[in-house]
Parts: sequence; structure tokens; C-alpha cells
Amino acid sequence: MIDMEFKPIGKVHSPYKEKATAPIQPKYSDEFGKIEIFPEFADGLKDLEGFSHIWVIFVFHKSEGYDLHVKPYLDEEARGVFACRAPRRPNPIGMSLVKLENISDNILNIKGLDMLDGSPVLDIKPYVGDFDEFSDVRIGWLEGKVQQAPDKTGG
Amino acid sequence: MIDMEFKPIGKVHSPYKEKATAPIQPKYSDEFGKIEIFPEFADGLKDLEGFSHIWVIFVFHKSEGYDLHVKPYLDEEARGVFACRAPRRPNPIGMSLVKLENISDNILNIKGLDMLDGSPVLDIKPYVGDFDEFSDVRIGWLEGKVQQAPDKTGG
Repeated sequence: MIDMEFKPIGKVHSPYKEKATAPIQPKYSDEFGKIEIFPEFADGLKDLEGFSHIWVIFVFHKSEGYDLHVKPYLDEEARGVFACRAPRRPNPIGMSLVKLENISDNILNIKGLDMLDGSPVLDIKPYVGDFDEFSDVRIGWLEGKVQQAPDKTGG
Repeated sequence: MIDMEFKPIGKVHSPYKEKATAPIQPKYSDEFGKIEIFPEFADGLKDLEGFSHIWVIFVFHKSEGYDLHVKPYLDEEARGVFACRAPRRPNPIGMSLVKLENISDNILNIKGLDMLDGSPVLDIKPYVGDFDEFSDVRIGWLEGKVQQAPDKTGG
């Protein structure tokens, strides 16, 4: 049997205290914030500072329950939950790509923050463009909507 | 108290049965595979087929334990676990960006597979280039190594 119970390796320190004030995607944020990695995991940060961007895997800790169809901020129509990035999901796991400014001991100073204050962090992974980027991408119901996204939005 | 216990929403059907045969990144794979979404979550797949690429969040179910320093496949030197994508991590959560060929009921047919057969799937998210891509990226210890990566490698 697989253990599906995870433990936080750290937590987010963010100016966003509530869902209503957080941006929908880190791309639309210039906010600075910190990720505190708990001391027992800090040795795992070795060599991370060479990367300009990192993936933060975290828990949407303020989200409760989920629906399989949701009306995303960018659309009028209800979409399947797996076709959008809404926080209320069967497993409320988020991924944020943020800019890593620097590391001071067990604190990651980051830019481009969209996570709420106190979000439990499950993992940090380096961003490697060559692995993560594709050409010839279709973006379904989001086509034509992404450019119009505002800087900030409700949850 | 936050519930950190997650439940699989589906599982991977893959030609890779063992770690030794799986590619290190889906980018280096042309393999086809399937993601079975369990029937109770299938309604959440609505609108997903419009996306050419999807993120699969899954569990490295064959990984046991972790070390904070690991010697990655692409390097001679031990690196911090958060500066690489090795499967043995404090929380053994993986993210794979794969090409979505089509959806048949609750089955996602995908290309570019690096996940092991039977991997529990935690979440599916659409890939949206505008959100996920950055320019001016530095990739730390991986600089100069990515191009040399072989098609397949030991786990």
C-alpha cells in the first residue's frame, strides 16, 4: 500500500493573506515573498541557487471540497476541474513557477508570488526550460483569453 | 489542521515497469501510454481535450526514503535533492508534462511518457505556455548537460 500522506517541507510567507487578493497566476505578480524550508530539510537546498526559476509544489490550504465542474475566472462557462487550475480540486495541490532571487540559509527569496501566506510546501524542483517547454501548443478554452488576464483577481 | 492525505484520482498505464528502463524526462520519450482516470472523477475531464499538453502530478510509488544530497544521472557530483528531479524526495511527488493525444471516456491517451506503470495520479492540470514559460533562465549545475542527455537512462 502506498503512503499517500505527505508532510510539509516548509511554508510560504506571502503578502496575500486571503484568496480574494491573490493573483491567478504568478506570471501576473511582481510581489516578493519567502519560502521557509524547515531546518531538517535545508541541506536539500544545496546547488539550487544556480537556478533562476523554481517550481513550488504546495497545498491550497484555504480550499475546501471541490466540484468536478467549475467556472474559471477567465470564462463564463463551467469547465472540467482538470481543464483549469482552480484551487478547489480533488487533491488541492498547486504548482507555482517563481523567480528565485536568492537563498539565505533556509529561506528562499522569491518573486512572482501567487501563493497564500502559510501555504504548506511539499516540494521544490528546479525549472529547466529544455524539459518544460514545448512548441505547437494548443490551450483549449483559454485560447484568446490569456492575454486579457488582469494583474490581480479574485480567487 | 490541514489534511495532507491525498487520494489517487487515477493511475498510469505505461510500458515502463521498472525504474531502470524509464527515461529521465518525458521530453526524451516517444512512448505512448494511458492515464486512467477513475470513473468518479471522469466528469472533471470536460474541456481538457482542447489542450495539446498536460501536467500530470503523480506519486513515485516505487521510491523508498530519500537523501537530502543525491548524485543525479547527469552529474558526477552530489546535489541538493531540491536542485534535481530525482524520484527519491521527502515527498515523492512527480510532475510530467506530456502530450495529450486524445481522450476516450475516462482514458487519456498520451505521448512522451516517463512514468512507471501503476503510478498513482494525484492531479491533471492544463499546460498553458503563457503561464509556464520564462525567458532569461539559468539552470545551475545542469548548464551544458541537458543537450547531452540520452534518449533513455537508468532511473
